[in-house]
Amino acid sequence: MVQKKYTIGVDFGTLSGRAAIIDVASGRELASAVHSYANGVIDERLPGTEIRLEPDWALQDPDDYLEVFKNTIPTVLQESNIDAADIIGIGIDFTACTMLPTTADGIPLCFLPEWRDQPHAWVKLWKHHAAQPEANQLNDTARENGFGELLDRYGGKISSEWFFPKVWQILNEAPEIYGAAGRMIEAADWVVWQLTGAETRNACTAGYKAMWSKQEGFPPKAFFKALDPKLENVVDDKMMREISPLGARAGGLSEEAAEWTGLLAGTAVAIANVDAHVSAPAATVTEPGRMVIIMGTSNCHMVIGQSEQIVPGMCGVVEDGIVPDLPGFEAGQSCVGDHFAWFIENCFPAEYAAEAEKGGLDAHDLLAEKAANLKPGESGLLALDWWNGNRSVLVDVDLTGLLIGATLATKPEEIYRALMEATAYGTRLIVETFRDNSVSVNEIVATGGLPNRNPLLMQIYSDVTGLPIYVAEAEQIGALGSAMHGAVAAGAGAGGYDSIVDAAHKMARLREEGYEPVPEHTAVYDQLFTEYKVLHDYFGRGANDVMKRLKSMKAEILFNK
Amino acid sequence: MVQKKYTIGVDFGTLSGRAAIIDVASGRELASAVHSYANGVIDERLPGTEIRLEPDWALQDPDDYLEVFKNTIPTVLQESNIDAADIIGIGIDFTACTMLPTTADGIPLCFLPEWRDQPHAWVKLWKHHAAQPEANQLNDTARENGFGELLDRYGGKISSEWFFPKVWQILNEAPEIYGAAGRMIEAADWVVWQLTGAETRNACTAGYKAMWSKQEGFPPKAFFKALDPKLENVVDDKMMREISPLGARAGGLSEEAAEWTGLLAGTAVAIANVDAHVSAPAATVTEPGRMVIIMGTSNCHMVIGQSEQIVPGMCGVVEDGIVPDLPGFEAGQSCVGDHFAWFIENCFPAEYAAEAEKGGLDAHDLLAEKAANLKPGESGLLALDWWNGNRSVLVDVDLTGLLIGATLATKPEEIYRALMEATAYGTRLIVETFRDNSVSVNEIVATGGLPNRNPLLMQIYSDVTGLPIYVAEAEQIGALGSAMHGAVAAGAGAGGYDSIVDAAHKMARLREEGYEPVPEHTAVYDQLFTEYKVLHDYFGRGANDVMKRLKSMKAEILFNK
Repeated sequence: MVQKKYTIGVDFGTLSGRAAIIDVASGRELASAVHSYANGVIDERLPGTEIRLEPDWALQDPDDYLEVFKNTIPTVLQESNIDAADIIGIGIDFTACTMLPTTADGIPLCFLPEWRDQPHAWVKLWKHHAAQPEANQLNDTARENGFGELLDRYGGKISSEWFFPKVWQILNEAPEIYGAAGRMIEAADWVVWQLTGAETRNACTAGYKAMWSKQEGFPPKAFFKALDPKLENVVDDKMMREISPLGARAGGLSEEAAEWTGLLAGTAVAIANVDAHVSAPAATVTEPGRMVIIMGTSNCHMVIGQSEQIVPGMCGVVEDGIVPDLPGFEAGQSCVGDHFAWFIENCFPAEYAAEAEKGGLDAHDLLAEKAANLKPGESGLLALDWWNGNRSVLVDVDLTGLLIGATLATKPEEIYRALMEATAYGTRLIVETFRDNSVSVNEIVATGGLPNRNPLLMQIYSDVTGLPIYVAEAEQIGALGSAMHGAVAAGAGAGGYDSIVDAAHKMARLREEGYEPVPEHTAVYDQLFTEYKVLHDYFGRGANDVMKRLKSMKAEILFNK
Repeated sequence: MVQKKYTIGVDFGTLSGRAAIIDVASGRELASAVHSYANGVIDERLPGTEIRLEPDWALQDPDDYLEVFKNTIPTVLQESNIDAADIIGIGIDFTACTMLPTTADGIPLCFLPEWRDQPHAWVKLWKHHAAQPEANQLNDTARENGFGELLDRYGGKISSEWFFPKVWQILNEAPEIYGAAGRMIEAADWVVWQLTGAETRNACTAGYKAMWSKQEGFPPKAFFKALDPKLENVVDDKMMREISPLGARAGGLSEEAAEWTGLLAGTAVAIANVDAHVSAPAATVTEPGRMVIIMGTSNCHMVIGQSEQIVPGMCGVVEDGIVPDLPGFEAGQSCVGDHFAWFIENCFPAEYAAEAEKGGLDAHDLLAEKAANLKPGESGLLALDWWNGNRSVLVDVDLTGLLIGATLATKPEEIYRALMEATAYGTRLIVETFRDNSVSVNEIVATGGLPNRNPLLMQIYSDVTGLPIYVAEAEQIGALGSAMHGAVAAGAGAGGYDSIVDAAHKMARLREEGYEPVPEHTAVYDQLFTEYKVLHDYFGRGANDVMKRLKSMKAEILFNK
């Protein structure tokens, strides 16, 4: 009998990191442990100082990431009672773009006493939005200087959340930090560096967040020079041109990291990955035609294509971005679970709260129960799901929410259902845009926080899109995906796998029960979607920019208040 | 010293009637009493039977009106300790069109055992909406048969709430009741008949609800014949062509009514009036240029003009309709206080409910307090105030509510304020439509339930319209207005007045504190109103009939459910 082998996946989220130990043969999770970041999201003051941050800033402390390794891996080893010698690999996934400046040796500048009081020395979290001026200028400069095609792979716009706007903000606001930084690096790659002692860069963040492509590499120096002459050599001076494919072996675990974790030095460490993208193979998807949607506060849609296409309004297309050798397409909706949470926080009436308490339900469950009794179209309501702007396909953060059709008889559960339906229409528009541009989507695999607790939402998505929807079995999908990449980094010879496709066949599963579109529902939703599209284009494509005017009026009034 | 004289005003509302005894010299109220209708609004079953009513029906029991006289007048006489000999007149006002079939002698058919089980024998309350098919057919027939100009004075459409659709519904659904009815009469005129023993018809309901005009009388027989040959002689057979001006003496109190009330037989009884219209002189308005708005669940706007004009989308223009010899214009918004009540019932969050309870505030007060801290434009929200359709200027019950500009940071008080603002934009559009059609509006006098408890709403209306707003002093404005008309019916010789203008000078007053537009607010609201108008026209004038399509889809689904 062959000795069982295991890998560890570590999933770095916004507020905590989670490690899970996974059986390589079956994908079964044996133990998991979570460690919350001591400094969490830093958006008011720098820790240990009175230095206040401006609005839209969001930082983190890189030491919190190391603490995740030091706390969670020993715990899962102990809880599972597995011998470290049977752990053949480790993989990690991270939020992105979450980046930091370090010395040439990888020491975060914020660890150094001389820079500790400088906000720009810390990690910029994905949702740090203060580089919007740089993002705007980058997009304008690209278009005005003949580099417009660099934006095509990203829906026509580079987001303020991404790598170069953040780097440029550092240069603009703290040139001394920019100068002191030997490296500018994704936190994903930085933690792998800390595990192995060797710097690597992964294809996923390079492609989706730093404008890299497998064919053309990074943008040319002339582009960076057009932004700012001081940026001309940013790639050569502070990054790496060698980009590693997902699942590759970044190196072996260093002696120091072995001591932190209790694992053996030399254990295979996989190239870093991103939380969303690592989930696709963990949801069984390693081939074209099946869309993965990670449904939580927001939706992230991923599809693997046969060939690279320019699809308007997507977040990005990257060859090797999800699985090796095929283009991975990403699209997104910036507000999904957040819609429902907003509604419950702001519009859940006292009478319903009393009813929920009496029935032992939470607010969501009560609303979902009532909303499930409504037929499609019965509320007479229609919403545009833009409470947090629109990511795909309009790529416009200045759009806002709309609800139409309210009467004096409108009930809270009708609005709640209309918000669910609105997010489903948004997904259908993304699916149709992919299809219209030669990227096939024949079924949906859902994962993330919402699918497991919201069957009504799943049925609505199936009815609205007309597609079958399956749900990934693993609830901690990121940790599983990372462990799968750890198994690939170890390789079949060590008891792992030679490809992520093989790993997915053995380690990833769907739940048995899925969702099929109900034809009568789909017929009604086809009509409602037609109405949605008309409003989507009227408010989203320039016919009436009232949303932007209201938003800029609001900003001006708040600024002068 | 001249002995003080008094009049009694009786205000018949939807659920109860109120009598007040008023000092003719000063307008001061000495006592008032309310009597609730025992059968209230009959919208489920006929009283004392198992006969169920269809949706949209709303009936009343005429005996409830007589009970108001019998209960309230003796009470106010006793409470005020005034000698019946010093009561020189009595006036009434009523909801309209609230109508009933009676015998030729004025006995309600529903009082007769043979008709008591027939719903059509009862009073049809103003909000009986089941005559919509008849209203639609009336409007179509008028336009198709060369009688289109009859609709011009009513914004182009006769409402299902009005007199002839209700009469026609009786003919269509209960021809035996139509045949048995010696009279079809407004409840307003019917109660005056019960007080005096003499049938009269008032100019206000004739003009606003029954298509009568001072110049042309009722529509020609050919029009009624085009509707249905059996209706050809409806005016001659079941109504009266003699229409009496407001403030005229309908007759003296009958012996029987004197017994009911404790007043002296022969006491002057004024021609009937309508609750809204009687309020204009009670709010000091008897001349052109000053708009009266009765603000409650809905808004009713009244302006006196110099000459009759066709103003698009108004509810009606009637010479003698508000004061004698001048045209009275009426417009309306079908949902004002109802908006706020809907919001509080359906969207007032539990957390706020707890805060309100702690502070000893009701929901409205808490929201108004929070909303008052917002600057115009600060919420970034804009709403169309169509939760109950649009009365003026679009005259379209199938329009529905819209909210635009929501974000994840949107708070309940911001939505609440946006709904307030939306009703103010609706009023501004009405004011501008009057002005664009040569009817001047230079200031607003507000009365009704909202002005006294909602100073923020008053300030918003002033800021949005750019007009000063004054508030009528009397809280029971209908009863005061009716008492004023009672004083005019009595005449100066008896200690009353010879005209409603004289009565208004002495008996009606405004509060000292009014509202002036704040220029900075008006500047912001000018921009927001521009946005409102674009959305108003886009959704309300046919560019995108999505609201109607959603509503008809809803109706179909509910019908098939």
